[in-house]
Amino acid sequence: MNNKIPYKIYLEESELPKAWYNVRADMKTKPAPLLNPGTGKPMTLEELSGVFCTELAKQELDNDTAYIAIPEEILDFYKMYRPAPLVRAYFLEKALGTPAKIYYKFEGNNTSGSHKLNSAIAQAYYAKKQGLKGVTTETGAGQWGTALSMACSYFGLDCKVYMVKVSYEQKPFRREVMRTYGASVTPSPSDTTKVGREILEKFPGTTGSLGCAISEAVEAAVTHEGYRYVLGSVLSQVLLHQSIIGLEAMAACDKYDIKPDIIIGCAGGGSNLGGLISPFMGKKLRGEADYKFIAVEPASCPSLTRGSYAYDFCDTGMVCPLAKMYTLGSGFIPSANHAGGLRYHGMSSVLSELYDEGLIEARSVEQTSVFEAAQQFARVEGTLPAPESSHAIRVAIDEALKCKETGEEKTILFGLTGTGYFDMVAYQKFNDGEMSDYIPSDEEIAKSLANLPKL
Amino acid sequence: MNNKIPYKIYLEESELPKAWYNVRADMKTKPAPLLNPGTGKPMTLEELSGVFCTELAKQELDNDTAYIAIPEEILDFYKMYRPAPLVRAYFLEKALGTPAKIYYKFEGNNTSGSHKLNSAIAQAYYAKKQGLKGVTTETGAGQWGTALSMACSYFGLDCKVYMVKVSYEQKPFRREVMRTYGASVTPSPSDTTKVGREILEKFPGTTGSLGCAISEAVEAAVTHEGYRYVLGSVLSQVLLHQSIIGLEAMAACDKYDIKPDIIIGCAGGGSNLGGLISPFMGKKLRGEADYKFIAVEPASCPSLTRGSYAYDFCDTGMVCPLAKMYTLGSGFIPSANHAGGLRYHGMSSVLSELYDEGLIEARSVEQTSVFEAAQQFARVEGTLPAPESSHAIRVAIDEALKCKETGEEKTILFGLTGTGYFDMVAYQKFNDGEMSDYIPSDEEIAKSLANLPKL
Repeated sequence: MNNKIPYKIYLEESELPKAWYNVRADMKTKPAPLLNPGTGKPMTLEELSGVFCTELAKQELDNDTAYIAIPEEILDFYKMYRPAPLVRAYFLEKALGTPAKIYYKFEGNNTSGSHKLNSAIAQAYYAKKQGLKGVTTETGAGQWGTALSMACSYFGLDCKVYMVKVSYEQKPFRREVMRTYGASVTPSPSDTTKVGREILEKFPGTTGSLGCAISEAVEAAVTHEGYRYVLGSVLSQVLLHQSIIGLEAMAACDKYDIKPDIIIGCAGGGSNLGGLISPFMGKKLRGEADYKFIAVEPASCPSLTRGSYAYDFCDTGMVCPLAKMYTLGSGFIPSANHAGGLRYHGMSSVLSELYDEGLIEARSVEQTSVFEAAQQFARVEGTLPAPESSHAIRVAIDEALKCKETGEEKTILFGLTGTGYFDMVAYQKFNDGEMSDYIPSDEEIAKSLANLPKL
Repeated sequence: MNNKIPYKIYLEESELPKAWYNVRADMKTKPAPLLNPGTGKPMTLEELSGVFCTELAKQELDNDTAYIAIPEEILDFYKMYRPAPLVRAYFLEKALGTPAKIYYKFEGNNTSGSHKLNSAIAQAYYAKKQGLKGVTTETGAGQWGTALSMACSYFGLDCKVYMVKVSYEQKPFRREVMRTYGASVTPSPSDTTKVGREILEKFPGTTGSLGCAISEAVEAAVTHEGYRYVLGSVLSQVLLHQSIIGLEAMAACDKYDIKPDIIIGCAGGGSNLGGLISPFMGKKLRGEADYKFIAVEPASCPSLTRGSYAYDFCDTGMVCPLAKMYTLGSGFIPSANHAGGLRYHGMSSVLSELYDEGLIEARSVEQTSVFEAAQQFARVEGTLPAPESSHAIRVAIDEALKCKETGEEKTILFGLTGTGYFDMVAYQKFNDGEMSDYIPSDEEIAKSLANLPKL
């Protein structure tokens, strides 16, 4: 083992970034604005403030400020579980016999089990500061809901979570963690909202989707006095908060003179990938350095690799603003055998624009190969990864094996977004050899895309 | 927040202890030796080597060497998840309004979810070095089995785990984690061993106990060529390996001039408590410092507070050596409503001797009050604790509240041994108000103690 660079690099508490980085400030072409579905015009601060906390709405619209100070109360909370370690995957490198150097930024060392807490605590803080009673949200795999429950518990806010029904059933224990933190959890679609009842009537027996759950959570927010809606991914404000991942990773790299060639992240709505790459992308946009960025998505929900770049509804019930993004259509639901998160039909407008400009590559991977990578990683690196994170592991291993063939000593950095403790149903399927893959047909995607809004 | 001492103290990798500390070396009265149940004489190295790896048998018998060097291969593995942080519980202190300073040594930041990995990797290493094919063991709550599976996977050893049936049923996902690491898991008692079949015949419908599972694992070891038995607690060798917890905690305290007044640990077989307090106890035994040590055990399995200090069988099937310890009798099984681990009928001989000499205090706590403490801790400190660890949290909170009454600014250190991700059935019961307590009657304990071996 190389003794120069420790296995785990922990920054000092005093080295914690004091400001988030807003990559939009360095983008020549800004991400397309959210549109009011009624008027087709960009959403104003006033309009957004009806749904989101005002300060968060401001962050959503801010394409110009490069650094936004992290409030002291959030920094205090961050100290509970940050700085997160940058880990040198010595054992994985050895197992692969690769000359590549592999690093991962590990965000699983908190009870929410993922990076989602970085934005949850920020959104809960602004809700509290605004004097709200509580917030509503959706959750898919449950990481976001858990993170938000923790954050709301910390600030004494009520938290109503709409959980995609298939996850609610596959992950009963997730619900209990959220309840332990005092949140209420409703499987979605439900009969507690108008939009939920409509979806249930139109698609009886549906196992739900993030798009449905978002519609219900938004309705619950606007129909309850003193509530706002919060979202764990897709939005530009979320990428802003998640930039803490990339800022810390970059600080750790700089401290030990590590120069990543390839930066890899799993991508569902884009919160992790966007957060991890933001400051590195900033350097690339400013011409200060170059990196190869790879977004990894499930073959069963391939918004970047097979979607259209167009304005679309953010939710199934069509109650949200329209966003320009790589999308599979707001009615797209991944096949029932799809495990874990990364099941959103669209992709962050920021990442969509960067991808469209060729600044990011994208790859889709099938889930059995993802779980093979997960198992291999767990056995040598000692951390049981979340299925979502394992998409990045898959491609990191693929890239390291390419280096083995070519003899190149590339430096690979990937985001290990979380742990898989609540994904054992999926692991069991894999252990029993009962996991299958699914790739949607061109017809299936075309049919879903036929329902894009006409502007 | 006080900025002088960081929320989390991470030692540098270079500050990792290079040797384990053997508290027996500083004890005036050594722990009573293991006895051969046939002859009543102390077990020899040769006898022990039939069951345990030879090097581990040597460590078991070594009452004199104060420091035993940690082999390089184990140090390398330790770097995967150590040094573990010493955390200042600023948020808990604030919530309690106590003048006490509370610190906890957090051992949950690895996939096994607990401190058990510290000894598992050592035991797997010595098994590998001895050229064995594999090892057998028992697991109760599943933490030890998970840790051993990880360790065996790392060294390419086969791993056969006998899991207490009630835990096997309450924690289906634990099995999948062990399988992911390549272990085989059998609910105990089972019909795969002679002793298991006998127990099933005598107690049909039993939900198992650690004592049963130990008997089965020992039989499986001695009847399979190239296998040895390994144990995750109770034994002196395990306390030796776990001393890494206390050594790191002490190094972190010294670095920041923290002087604990009270040191608290949960106690089942004693692996965590013994590991945490060993180096501090060494100072106390050598007259260099003084500390108040508190062992916390469940009221439903109160070996220290209500057991006898006597030679007893270590297992239900009576196939193991006899150990002198505080015991409830080898047939004692905690009531069915008992959640989590800490269900062993006896206590480490080292800790039993120290307790008998009045060097350690003991307290028993009821489980609903333990889960209240767990929930309170989770909501402010952001980590969902294991039920076992929450016993220590309960008493740490109690002691901090005493300080609030008296105004004393005591420094409290406790061991947070692991996370509760696999204990959500118990948390659900607590969330639903369906958790109950159980205190065994004097008659129940006397009846169990009537079966102590006659020497």
